[in-house]
Amino acid sequence: MLRTRTCGEIRIENVGQTVTLAGWVDRYRDHGGVVFIDLRDRYGITQVAFRLEESSDIQKLASGLRHEDVVQVIGEVVDRGPENKNPKLATGDVELRAAQLNVLNKSKTPPFEPRSDSVPNEELRLQYRYIDLRRPALQEKMILRHKLTKVVRDYFDENGFLEIETPILGRSTPEGARDYLVPSRVHEGTFYALPQSPQLFKQLLMVAGYDRYMQIARCFRDEDLRADRQPEFTQIDLEMAFVEQEDILQMVDGLVARMVHAVQGKDINLPLPRYTHAEVMRDYGSDKPDLRFGMKLKDISDLVAESDFGVFKNTVATGGKVRGICVKGCADKYSRRILDNDFKNIVGDYGAKGMAYFKVAGGKLESSIAKFFNEDQQKAIVRRMEAEDGDLLLYVADTWKVTCSALAALRNYLGRDLKLYDPLEINCAWVLDFPLVTFNAEENRWDAEHHPFCAVHPEDVGYFETDPSKIRAQSYDLVCNGYESASGSVRIHDSQIQQKIFDLLKIPAADAEVRFGFLLQALRYGAPPHAGIALGLDRWIMMFTGSDNIRDVIAFPKTQKASDLMLGAPSDVDAKQLRDLHIKIDVPK
Amino acid sequence: MLRTRTCGEIRIENVGQTVTLAGWVDRYRDHGGVVFIDLRDRYGITQVAFRLEESSDIQKLASGLRHEDVVQVIGEVVDRGPENKNPKLATGDVELRAAQLNVLNKSKTPPFEPRSDSVPNEELRLQYRYIDLRRPALQEKMILRHKLTKVVRDYFDENGFLEIETPILGRSTPEGARDYLVPSRVHEGTFYALPQSPQLFKQLLMVAGYDRYMQIARCFRDEDLRADRQPEFTQIDLEMAFVEQEDILQMVDGLVARMVHAVQGKDINLPLPRYTHAEVMRDYGSDKPDLRFGMKLKDISDLVAESDFGVFKNTVATGGKVRGICVKGCADKYSRRILDNDFKNIVGDYGAKGMAYFKVAGGKLESSIAKFFNEDQQKAIVRRMEAEDGDLLLYVADTWKVTCSALAALRNYLGRDLKLYDPLEINCAWVLDFPLVTFNAEENRWDAEHHPFCAVHPEDVGYFETDPSKIRAQSYDLVCNGYESASGSVRIHDSQIQQKIFDLLKIPAADAEVRFGFLLQALRYGAPPHAGIALGLDRWIMMFTGSDNIRDVIAFPKTQKASDLMLGAPSDVDAKQLRDLHIKIDVPK
Repeated sequence: MLRTRTCGEIRIENVGQTVTLAGWVDRYRDHGGVVFIDLRDRYGITQVAFRLEESSDIQKLASGLRHEDVVQVIGEVVDRGPENKNPKLATGDVELRAAQLNVLNKSKTPPFEPRSDSVPNEELRLQYRYIDLRRPALQEKMILRHKLTKVVRDYFDENGFLEIETPILGRSTPEGARDYLVPSRVHEGTFYALPQSPQLFKQLLMVAGYDRYMQIARCFRDEDLRADRQPEFTQIDLEMAFVEQEDILQMVDGLVARMVHAVQGKDINLPLPRYTHAEVMRDYGSDKPDLRFGMKLKDISDLVAESDFGVFKNTVATGGKVRGICVKGCADKYSRRILDNDFKNIVGDYGAKGMAYFKVAGGKLESSIAKFFNEDQQKAIVRRMEAEDGDLLLYVADTWKVTCSALAALRNYLGRDLKLYDPLEINCAWVLDFPLVTFNAEENRWDAEHHPFCAVHPEDVGYFETDPSKIRAQSYDLVCNGYESASGSVRIHDSQIQQKIFDLLKIPAADAEVRFGFLLQALRYGAPPHAGIALGLDRWIMMFTGSDNIRDVIAFPKTQKASDLMLGAPSDVDAKQLRDLHIKIDVPK
Repeated sequence: MLRTRTCGEIRIENVGQTVTLAGWVDRYRDHGGVVFIDLRDRYGITQVAFRLEESSDIQKLASGLRHEDVVQVIGEVVDRGPENKNPKLATGDVELRAAQLNVLNKSKTPPFEPRSDSVPNEELRLQYRYIDLRRPALQEKMILRHKLTKVVRDYFDENGFLEIETPILGRSTPEGARDYLVPSRVHEGTFYALPQSPQLFKQLLMVAGYDRYMQIARCFRDEDLRADRQPEFTQIDLEMAFVEQEDILQMVDGLVARMVHAVQGKDINLPLPRYTHAEVMRDYGSDKPDLRFGMKLKDISDLVAESDFGVFKNTVATGGKVRGICVKGCADKYSRRILDNDFKNIVGDYGAKGMAYFKVAGGKLESSIAKFFNEDQQKAIVRRMEAEDGDLLLYVADTWKVTCSALAALRNYLGRDLKLYDPLEINCAWVLDFPLVTFNAEENRWDAEHHPFCAVHPEDVGYFETDPSKIRAQSYDLVCNGYESASGSVRIHDSQIQQKIFDLLKIPAADAEVRFGFLLQALRYGAPPHAGIALGLDRWIMMFTGSDNIRDVIAFPKTQKASDLMLGAPSDVDAKQLRDLHIKIDVPK
């Protein structure tokens, strides 16, 4: 046996026992007569003492140990004595008095030490991922990821779901521009595509009568990578037949409660709050608001339409909006420079041409432009903003859309900057009644807000002919801490209604047949009403571990340029491989 | 609510209750005054009666129902009465007296009926997989697959394993000819490869200190497909650090016992039997013998070396072997035509030039060639074969290798043909001590029997210089019902020994560096001793469900030509997609 115990489990009760430990040399101190080694494994750290008085040979061998050597030690558990105890270590009451030492594998000097306080640059970490993954902070994340997926699977199993594996080698779909393709060797000149989600397969499983499906599913999207995206990512994917929206919301409510309880030991109140898309756009300017703090957007358009401030007045006159937020107690928090530069840059990134601000004092407004508002107007604004003396008011005057995105970004910035929430708090709410389609002015057609398989709110069917923008989809997003952490919909189960949507989206019948023929066909052979949702697993692990980098919750992630720095992937391949696959590289010289 | 109960749960206790059911019209019978519908879902079948006396409108609507229509029915549960009970159905004591009928979705006439006794041809089934998957036989397999993977995950979780997801987008490896490649959009002219197994990643996880890893992992192999292979398949993959072979065998023994218990409710004896590679080759001629029946191979070379039968005599004289099997009580079972044609064809497929046979009668041999053996020789052969009167003896005289494969095939055929075992019995045993390498005469070098990362039996290190064929690998296969159902090894954790293996396999250093550089590098930074194994999940589901077609245990399988007939994949893609990926199709006109 290579070990009888792990490095995390020896306690004062074990004193006098002879045990065998194995692990990595974490730290070493040579005190002349005694060499101390912190021996580390996934379970913890145990101090090992190699004493000259015990064996000079072993002590000499031990004095040669260096960072990350792998060793096996046999010895007796001894009490460290009151003065030498280390209360920071679970094993800190004892140490191992080494009687035998086997060096299982010497290590070269590592590029960085896993338990060093300074985290090296990410490129080096990714290149030596097998060392980076030794860092306790990363190990905790991987362990949490395992535990959380176990909790998820147990929950769905208890609820009668079947986990069914769907193919990775699929077919290229309409959003094909983002597909990873795989050339076929057998069928010359054709390609598989890696799935962006198991969407179509799970719908087919409902048609096939599987009733309750779930899968922790790998998905692929070949897109320009942002900080929180990876070319391959993992979804908790589910679908149910003979259900309505309400059934999905309740099922996911239960899942969220179970996950939060498992990770944080807390019980959350159910049902989770529900808002309509219109409500959150009105109150937060975003369909994924961070609800851990208030600071709702207020519309003062009506109050300033008659003011003397031209920018506000003209904006309202031309159909725009003046909206703003009240930053509690921050009248003197931010300098004029920050307000005029930093804050204006934030809203500017979202198209706002400027930002107006006031302090509230004596129940009225103070600022260089306050004079353009009469006393009644000022008081009405203060009232509308639910403001008090000492508050800071910030405004954007623009189209409704720009006020939404600009103020949402500003609000998010302020929430973070003012530390208005506990970063580990999980705050979830549903956003319902999304619009089915948005108008794509460039291409003069309607685009699906989610995907073309969303069922329509029964009350809104009449709008197909009159005003498609008013059609509400039976779709729902679960919004947590300002992120879309789940997204789903009731699906169309009727091939005629599906056709109506394709018509609205101007997807030609022949195109739809090529791309989704199998789904349209399946809908003609007895498809039950069904609905589903998918949760982004990586995002959930990030929330639970307080990570702001998706690469910290994936064992072997890729860079923002989709490279694996450890493997050296993607890489060149043999000419023969390409010939077998009937492809040629086509790079302009 | 679309339903209050499923179609499998109504019992006599529910009589008098009003329930809502939803499902598929499985069968319908119109008796004039009453229309009977068998309503089906994943949970079972409930008979629904639409009676004229109840409502002529509904009865009329019901009389229009056809196969696979999806309907919702509200009605009262009534006792069928003793004369009308159907003991074959769990719900057979009752029926639903329909008061309301909603047709949720009409079906076109399906190409086949899911519960028809005749199974349509596989091409049609795969094309309409969503209907095929409604067949109860397939549903049972998918449900078992879900349950079994749950059992597996629970077992490993209890044993302290972490499930860690490894990448699908990896790097092309030495067995690259079988790799599926994925062109990179970002890095022009380079490719990812889909993993044939997570082998390298799991070793890196051990180097990273994760100690006990498992994953139910999708693997990919682009090979000419045999009946039991699929381009994508699923492995139960595990790896442990600070362990020896024995730890892996015990861990998997426990898993097998748990799986058999979960599926069959039986307790199996542990430890599972263990044989060396040399033993099974001697006794069964195969490294994956079917141990559900005996019929061991016997070597009679020494007994026939001096006989007058030239074929046997000359074979032995030139270093070959005469080996055979005893088929109990089958002296008269097979005609001369079958023996001379069918059986000879079976052995002929494995290179044997002929097959000799005898009946045993009066303690001696009978056949056209019996006269070439004297009485002592005949009696010695009967004794060696442990034969009795009425047995049939079959022999192949050839190289040792040909006698192995030819007789193993014949033995398998006879086991099946004579029904010597229960097809649902699971019989597992370990095969240990595989040779590390086999000589590749064509390329004049040694090939790895498993893969180049297998540790060497410590006693055999001396053979590296003298006779590599004698080196035993620390590798182990779990053989069940004649299939390799798991395969693994202790890994090399020392970069110098790893180099020695590469040298033996004549993998040039530069090549090894390009292909496995990251692994060799990782082994230099503190790799612990580690070992692992992978079980073929699809094969296990096949064994437990008695399937002989891998496509019956995968929800959306591909054909033997790697096509998905339902999706129509692989398919043509847009020229723009190919341009974005920097590749061109290269098919000779």
